[in-house]
Amino acid sequence: MEARIEVGILGATGMVGQHFIKFLQGHPWFDLKWLGASDRSAGKRYSDACTWHLGVAPEAISAMTVEESKPGNAPRLLFSAMDASVATDIERAFAQAGHVVVSNSKNHRMERDVPLLIPEINPDHLKLIPGQQRARGWKGQIATNPNCATISLCMGLAPLRAFGITKIIVTTLQAISGAGYPGVPSMDINANVIPYIGGEEEKMEQETQKILGDFRGDHIDPLAARVSAHCNRVPVVDGHTVTVSVEFSSKPSLADVRNAFDRFTSVPQQRKLPSAPATPIIYMPQQDRPQPRKDAERERGMAAFVGRLRPCPALDYKFVALTHNTIRGAAGAAVLNAELMHSEGMLD
Amino acid sequence: MEARIEVGILGATGMVGQHFIKFLQGHPWFDLKWLGASDRSAGKRYSDACTWHLGVAPEAISAMTVEESKPGNAPRLLFSAMDASVATDIERAFAQAGHVVVSNSKNHRMERDVPLLIPEINPDHLKLIPGQQRARGWKGQIATNPNCATISLCMGLAPLRAFGITKIIVTTLQAISGAGYPGVPSMDINANVIPYIGGEEEKMEQETQKILGDFRGDHIDPLAARVSAHCNRVPVVDGHTVTVSVEFSSKPSLADVRNAFDRFTSVPQQRKLPSAPATPIIYMPQQDRPQPRKDAERERGMAAFVGRLRPCPALDYKFVALTHNTIRGAAGAAVLNAELMHSEGMLD
Amino acid sequence: MEARIEVGILGATGMVGQHFIKFLQGHPWFDLKWLGASDRSAGKRYSDACTWHLGVAPEAISAMTVEESKPGNAPRLLFSAMDASVATDIERAFAQAGHVVVSNSKNHRMERDVPLLIPEINPDHLKLIPGQQRARGWKGQIATNPNCATISLCMGLAPLRAFGITKIIVTTLQAISGAGYPGVPSMDINANVIPYIGGEEEKMEQETQKILGDFRGDHIDPLAARVSAHCNRVPVVDGHTVTVSVEFSSKPSLADVRNAFDRFTSVPQQRKLPSAPATPIIYMPQQDRPQPRKDAERERGMAAFVGRLRPCPALDYKFVALTHNTIRGAAGAAVLNAELMHSEGMLD
Amino acid sequence: MEARIEVGILGATGMVGQHFIKFLQGHPWFDLKWLGASDRSAGKRYSDACTWHLGVAPEAISAMTVEESKPGNAPRLLFSAMDASVATDIERAFAQAGHVVVSNSKNHRMERDVPLLIPEINPDHLKLIPGQQRARGWKGQIATNPNCATISLCMGLAPLRAFGITKIIVTTLQAISGAGYPGVPSMDINANVIPYIGGEEEKMEQETQKILGDFRGDHIDPLAARVSAHCNRVPVVDGHTVTVSVEFSSKPSLADVRNAFDRFTSVPQQRKLPSAPATPIIYMPQQDRPQPRKDAERERGMAAFVGRLRPCPALDYKFVALTHNTIRGAAGAAVLNAELMHSEGMLD
Repeated sequence: MEARIEVGILGATGMVGQHFIKFLQGHPWFDLKWLGASDRSAGKRYSDACTWHLGVAPEAISAMTVEESKPGNAPRLLFSAMDASVATDIERAFAQAGHVVVSNSKNHRMERDVPLLIPEINPDHLKLIPGQQRARGWKGQIATNPNCATISLCMGLAPLRAFGITKIIVTTLQAISGAGYPGVPSMDINANVIPYIGGEEEKMEQETQKILGDFRGDHIDPLAARVSAHCNRVPVVDGHTVTVSVEFSSKPSLADVRNAFDRFTSVPQQRKLPSAPATPIIYMPQQDRPQPRKDAERERGMAAFVGRLRPCPALDYKFVALTHNTIRGAAGAAVLNAELMHSEGMLD
Repeated sequence: MEARIEVGILGATGMVGQHFIKFLQGHPWFDLKWLGASDRSAGKRYSDACTWHLGVAPEAISAMTVEESKPGNAPRLLFSAMDASVATDIERAFAQAGHVVVSNSKNHRMERDVPLLIPEINPDHLKLIPGQQRARGWKGQIATNPNCATISLCMGLAPLRAFGITKIIVTTLQAISGAGYPGVPSMDINANVIPYIGGEEEKMEQETQKILGDFRGDHIDPLAARVSAHCNRVPVVDGHTVTVSVEFSSKPSLADVRNAFDRFTSVPQQRKLPSAPATPIIYMPQQDRPQPRKDAERERGMAAFVGRLRPCPALDYKFVALTHNTIRGAAGAAVLNAELMHSEGMLD
Repeated sequence: MEARIEVGILGATGMVGQHFIKFLQGHPWFDLKWLGASDRSAGKRYSDACTWHLGVAPEAISAMTVEESKPGNAPRLLFSAMDASVATDIERAFAQAGHVVVSNSKNHRMERDVPLLIPEINPDHLKLIPGQQRARGWKGQIATNPNCATISLCMGLAPLRAFGITKIIVTTLQAISGAGYPGVPSMDINANVIPYIGGEEEKMEQETQKILGDFRGDHIDPLAARVSAHCNRVPVVDGHTVTVSVEFSSKPSLADVRNAFDRFTSVPQQRKLPSAPATPIIYMPQQDRPQPRKDAERERGMAAFVGRLRPCPALDYKFVALTHNTIRGAAGAAVLNAELMHSEGMLD
Repeated sequence: MEARIEVGILGATGMVGQHFIKFLQGHPWFDLKWLGASDRSAGKRYSDACTWHLGVAPEAISAMTVEESKPGNAPRLLFSAMDASVATDIERAFAQAGHVVVSNSKNHRMERDVPLLIPEINPDHLKLIPGQQRARGWKGQIATNPNCATISLCMGLAPLRAFGITKIIVTTLQAISGAGYPGVPSMDINANVIPYIGGEEEKMEQETQKILGDFRGDHIDPLAARVSAHCNRVPVVDGHTVTVSVEFSSKPSLADVRNAFDRFTSVPQQRKLPSAPATPIIYMPQQDRPQPRKDAERERGMAAFVGRLRPCPALDYKFVALTHNTIRGAAGAAVLNAELMHSEGMLD
């Protein structure tokens, strides 16, 4: 048995940082050895530096000392859960110092030479990294995963790329855990819908085009599809549901589309990456599924659930997709990205 | 002061029947004098015939005796809240006997000679009635209001008809009260989304085309727009929120569309019908409104609230609309229809 | 018609301040003319100084200018909605300057010479005021209302005082609106119970003894009953439900206790104070009522709803009580206090 | 390795039956081989005989054929999840035919010769069985587990028996899953509290006295404590929270009581029964725990979580307890009972 790779977390005390800690417990390849946070937390015992929100904190982690978010004694591979207000400079500083930064933060996602990865969809976008290293003059790497709602949408679209996607209209019904902690006040969301999430629609529209786009040597040609998002918060704890209408340049039959969902598999499955779900897209034939409270946590939160495929009178087809927003949509997404990078030899 | 018009309710013991009773309390024109229900309930005191679900039942109503749903001693004007399983024959029997049946049931909505009315949108569809009377050989009348989610959508679209609507994609976030009682089990909807409501999408797609269609002598030419609906149940008590993307044949500017919302008024407002909201469409400029728990009950539940108008990258514009599903979307809809009919002299 | 009395609000921008504003709209005696807040807000238009959380803000109020919370140009009668961190000094400063401060803040509630009032229960506690003025050397007055959960409990107990209350065990199921805004994070309370509210149990135990105590010239002799509270937050928007077990020194029959609930009326009803509910305690005979979402808002949120009276195998009797926490439990409580004071000539 | 014991489920298609199926998956001792239900279901494939409500049904179970609920080809050990309307006669018929019926139904719980078991509390109550067999003239056995809310209470009280419990006042905040399916309509419980659950308070009061009572040869002497319950439904999915005030005949210190919680262990732990939690009572020192959504599922739903121990001004001490109502409070309770019986050699 190979030695595990030591890893650290940037922004370990926040909600996403906690999700990383939880997801990495018992990971066969990655050994969590380093927790970075703001200067305010540095030097403290982890359990004193933050309030744990995910049940009961792992004891070994609670006893660790939080470090300053500066290169130095950190492991080479770092997961970044940093707040957008500070992520840009710190992530770059670590990459400059030779670290591999696998980030969930939005800051670098749309930069020309930074992969915005979903391993089942665009593993080849990792080829941006050598150019990134040349252009930035660093030996490190920055790779990112998309916004949590974008992942729900793109996982649902992944099997359909061959049909030539030309138009997408998506409405999200997003869980409160997506807003972190304290996040959404209960007075705003109890028995209510909030039809707005700041910046989310723009992210979904732009990120989707990049994710589904084509690698062109030193950049990604975005998919030339028109993407429109309506983002809503609903009183659900975990799991972003999306309703999707899509138009194709080819005119596949309903059976063609259904087959594409049923047969979809990809690189993470072929390589048996540890966090990859056996079946990345689980099509549910029941007329009222998937549902976030009943389905999102299945398959360790890493699969996408799709259902209700039917013709769309306005575009071509419509369906519902669901992923667990803090697992497949955040911590698990980044860890799967790192697993893909390791399988490519990029962490050697 | 004119004498009030005596009215009755068909299906008075069900949830929609109760909403009619509540809405008609203190009505200036209509005097509720007759409660019809199934044979099982007939002869009982109203309070013994059903469990009241809307707070505390009006005392005068509780003491009334429930009648069989057969023509005879019923008032001429009847609001129908009957279950779809029985409404077809009973509503026809009453029309045959000369009654004016203003129905919330779905049964007759799509029939060629039956108006599917929203008074702010298609008051002229009432002109179908003379032909209905000739074709059916009855002196009575049947007029209907749309499905509750359809009303949310169509109220939002009402001001935009002049721009030439060609394509509509709508996603609903519907309240649990829309499913009646006992309706949706809490085990299904607590902290969850159900991405399916039986028959709802078909109703929204078909009814919208008829409502926005044109009166052609003996029938309605449906609007030649492509309509696609995604219907979802969310854990909200009252108020159906819809996200709408729409395409126009003319290419109005954003300001044109916004002005259309702000300036919209119609026949019910001009005639000051008692249940008509002063402003039928209330455009909310806040970026996160309308919201069902905060807005649906305003204006006695009869206005439509619209917000978040913005360009749609896939069609032309997108926005959010909200109406109170059991008031503007059901009981209040039918009562406003009857008020419109009275203002046309059709109840004389 | 008498001229209305000008009033102001201390702490007008907070959540409780907003509840005061909403409750005072259209008040027949009190005319809201002055809004005080922190220096940070002073000088701003009210609508710019805060985010309104209660539907849509009254236009006239939105346009008012917020004042510094210093005596000077403020009306004589002030409702205080100030945060506990600042209320002590500011309320005293206003009383020193001759103002009548009717406060919802907890700061002065338990002071020896300050009335802790529920007008239906202890209107005679207002007699503390002359002594307060002598002891403090001010011409002003400070009167307070209890904590919102205490009011639910004490309203339920009010009719039972004559039976000699000796022991009370109460468990609360409290609404999220009681925690203000942003208040309870949705991640903590969605589909959950939080069995703790900081400081609440101590308040309920102590305040109840004072409220039900006896005026003794210059102080209140607390009721010599043993009071134990278990406080819980539940995912309800408005309305604090309490389950109560109570022991009496006399041994009333079940019918005696029920009669006490049914017949209870008091000074606010006799004097027809504008905010007094016609029936202060509404006993509901249904086996599953009262319920917060269905009952709390009835009677303009000012009545207490009681139900499920039955023998308690451990003490003597048990029952359920409910009041609207932000109306009867906060803004409405203070306004009713001021109405009582006006009916006593204390505002002249 | 020993062969597993074949077991069956009576009432396999209902909600509790489904919980049994789920809980028994992978059980090291018990092998689920037989599913009994009503005549209506008999002969059908299990997946056709019911709608599965707990995520996704195990495939092997879905393919099994449902049997009539009559002795014959059923395994000797049967878990009963039957509805109370039919359980009495059917359970007796199976016991008469020599089966061991380990029942979650309420029907036989309070019968003089039937054990009402919680293995951590009263394993010696199994000694009722020989007398039961003599008195009933059967070779089979009937053993029962308590009502789900009673289990929350009694697990919390288990460590405190030595202090001499004389008085208990408990208020429950019960999850919706306790009402089965369809169970509580969402219109009744969404953002609401229902302060009543039919028959629940009586069950808690009587069952608690029997569970904590003493075995006396052919019957149980109930604990001579006065028990009073207030039962409420709250919008929580799983986990019954109870607030408890308790009086003791001895006067233990707070430290004594806390130690009793911390040190509690019992027969199921000593015997390492497969479903026994390692620590049956987990005392949580955080001031706001336990909480149902965050804690109930920990330890596979089989532990009781206790917190907030503090003096009670009215009785002696008060605290909060929580157990998972469908696992520790139903299916898991019965399975643990059967494990205890097996460890006693009663299944040989």
